Amino acid sequence: MTSAATAAEHLAAIRERRPLIHNITNFVVMNETANALLALGAAPVMAHALEEVAEAAEAADALVLNIGTLWPGQVEAMLRAGQAANRASLPVVLDPVGAGFTRLRSAAAARLLEEVAVTVVRANAAELAALAGGAARVRGVDCPSAVADAAELAQALARERRCTVAVSGATDYVAGGDRLLAVGNGHPLMAQITGSGCMASALCAAFAAVCEDPTQAAAEALAVFGLAGERAAAGAPGPGSFHVRLYDELAALAPRHVRAAARIERLSGGER
Amino acid sequence: MTSAATAAEHLAAIRERRPLIHNITNFVVMNETANALLALGAAPVMAHALEEVAEAAEAADALVLNIGTLWPGQVEAMLRAGQAANRASLPVVLDPVGAGFTRLRSAAAARLLEEVAVTVVRANAAELAALAGGAARVRGVDCPSAVADAAELAQALARERRCTVAVSGATDYVAGGDRLLAVGNGHPLMAQITGSGCMASALCAAFAAVCEDPTQAAAEALAVFGLAGERAAAGAPGPGSFHVRLYDELAALAPRHVRAAARIERLSGGER
Amino acid sequence: MTSAATAAEHLAAIRERRPLIHNITNFVVMNETANALLALGAAPVMAHALEEVAEAAEAADALVLNIGTLWPGQVEAMLRAGQAANRASLPVVLDPVGAGFTRLRSAAAARLLEEVAVTVVRANAAELAALAGGAARVRGVDCPSAVADAAELAQALARERRCTVAVSGATDYVAGGDRLLAVGNGHPLMAQITGSGCMASALCAAFAAVCEDPTQAAAEALAVFGLAGERAAAGAPGPGSFHVRLYDELAALAPRHVRAAARIERLSGGER
Repeated sequence: MTSAATAAEHLAAIRERRPLIHNITNFVVMNETANALLALGAAPVMAHALEEVAEAAEAADALVLNIGTLWPGQVEAMLRAGQAANRASLPVVLDPVGAGFTRLRSAAAARLLEEVAVTVVRANAAELAALAGGAARVRGVDCPSAVADAAELAQALARERRCTVAVSGATDYVAGGDRLLAVGNGHPLMAQITGSGCMASALCAAFAAVCEDPTQAAAEALAVFGLAGERAAAGAPGPGSFHVRLYDELAALAPRHVRAAARIERLSGGER
Repeated sequence: MTSAATAAEHLAAIRERRPLIHNITNFVVMNETANALLALGAAPVMAHALEEVAEAAEAADALVLNIGTLWPGQVEAMLRAGQAANRASLPVVLDPVGAGFTRLRSAAAARLLEEVAVTVVRANAAELAALAGGAARVRGVDCPSAVADAAELAQALARERRCTVAVSGATDYVAGGDRLLAVGNGHPLMAQITGSGCMASALCAAFAAVCEDPTQAAAEALAVFGLAGERAAAGAPGPGSFHVRLYDELAALAPRHVRAAARIERLSGGER
Repeated sequence: MTSAATAAEHLAAIRERRPLIHNITNFVVMNETANALLALGAAPVMAHALEEVAEAAEAADALVLNIGTLWPGQVEAMLRAGQAANRASLPVVLDPVGAGFTRLRSAAAARLLEEVAVTVVRANAAELAALAGGAARVRGVDCPSAVADAAELAQALARERRCTVAVSGATDYVAGGDRLLAVGNGHPLMAQITGSGCMASALCAAFAAVCEDPTQAAAEALAVFGLAGERAAAGAPGPGSFHVRLYDELAALAPRHVRAAARIERLSGGER
């Protein structure tokens, strides 16, 4: 079966099983992340108090840790939730928003990677470079050598942490085990609204909740989200309308659309 | 006068008096709750610091306590605001988001009900079951026996706490004193956006600020909100557009629309 | 060059230079502020932890301090960020949301004005009156004498604090040095969505990042935002649609539109 066909099947599975996604996320995108998960067909819960995160994670089908408006106490809650998710063998997605921008964020991302078994890291090229210890090595998303670097960095971090690493850009790259996948779906308007990366991370968690292979799941999530973005951009007069249409299209996207238009390419590795 | 006619009058009163609604609410829906109140014609204020909540509540016409992204310090602020509202004889609406999902939330909801004289509890069936001490007694919102249970649980909690209890579902039930009201307005798309329950709770506060009978006020709020939802759903291609249109329709809703289309039915009790 | 012409040039400069605007802002409008800045062409960052605000401010081109959902610890973070911005000679915009509504907010606004060299204060008439120590002196935004008072209060505070003071209303007034500017752009629907004032403050920071004269910059920001509001209101069926279109129009606004339609008038002072 092609990657597009399995993506279509997993979209149908999300709508049937309605996985509960526990988000400890930033204050900028809480509403938008919840609405993106609802539109996809998953069930979101937002809970960040230290006193309840383990319980919430145990009740969930996947966990998202997003450090976009971090404070030190939140790191403790993320560690507790992440470790509860690990004990329950749930997928954990880390979105290291702003790693490399402040020391607090870089340190928090590093500590989460150290103390939680993260299933998928979903980042942009600058954040990935910070996680990989080499901010200087990514020179801008539009530059072909930077893109090459981003894919290489994703592979390096994936090997080092034995996890899946997805890096967003004009083309998204997903590295895991010996595989490197490229996802061609998406639209430039996605970068003109805040939180599109955060939504992508939450969607990775929803796909990982119904797909045992997290590398495939992350690529499928990015393809489905990018496809919704392509469809939302058609005819949108600007970023406000695009944002609204993005939820409409996530909800309207049928497995047959995904089968026909998801663009997931295996660049290297894998036998499946 | 019919319930629909008084609902129309109270909508007009909200627009004339512009009651100030103080919300201590969750981070997911702060913007959306404020915009729903503005669209209805009320004035929202969001203030949650322990140091200012009593002062804010005293300046307001009604108070909303919503535990959707709770942390322990917030419970203290809610208690302080609730007690200030009680001293000032203001309506207090409690939305026990996630009661029954974590112990922190169940305990917070129980403590708020114990230490604040709550005027209206607005919940879904699962939260209501948790408050009433019997999560096992509600078996799913679509099942007729669960619906019966939700109405019964609302009546039991209303009697126990001497307050109004509104439970949202395909049909909403509002119990208070010896009355049980049913509200038939609404649309399935309302469950496809996050925060529709939270908005409903805030609207209950706005109606309670202009209507002395909180059971009637809650039913009117749910009817008006449901009616706006019905109108917003007409022609909406998906949940994103529906969400936008919901504010448009709340603002466009005229008393005559409410008089013609609010569906509030008295199932039992009451002499008015 | 007219004010409208320089506003058009500064809009083009924002899109070319993409200034990074660091926001320590309230939880109600985080997403909306970020999206307004993105639509304008600037780059937003939201960071509020005490441990990272100085680092974030130093990396930014301007700083926004907005006390709309204040808590005491946040004031410390704002002081630290503000002082870091002062050391780096960055523009600092203060939005004293709710000053005069609670003592916590009045005290926080006063302390920020005392301990940070604020470049621009952007407030409504009631907040301005509170900052100027005379809430009783503003009697309502629609009353001509209140408008006169708001402009006078803005001038008084601008002189006292040696900063620019912008006060929003049917007409916006911007006072700085010996100048008093009036901005005639805007639309009543802007007051029907939450956060329009907060967005205006963030846009003041974006213009101040590319324009050395903060009084001119604030007037340009308010004119551009008001013009986007006028264009968004045309054909919007209600506040929900208006809100969406506001981002579309901010993104679509070309320098030539600003040159043709920005209405900035010098009421007194200035030689430029």
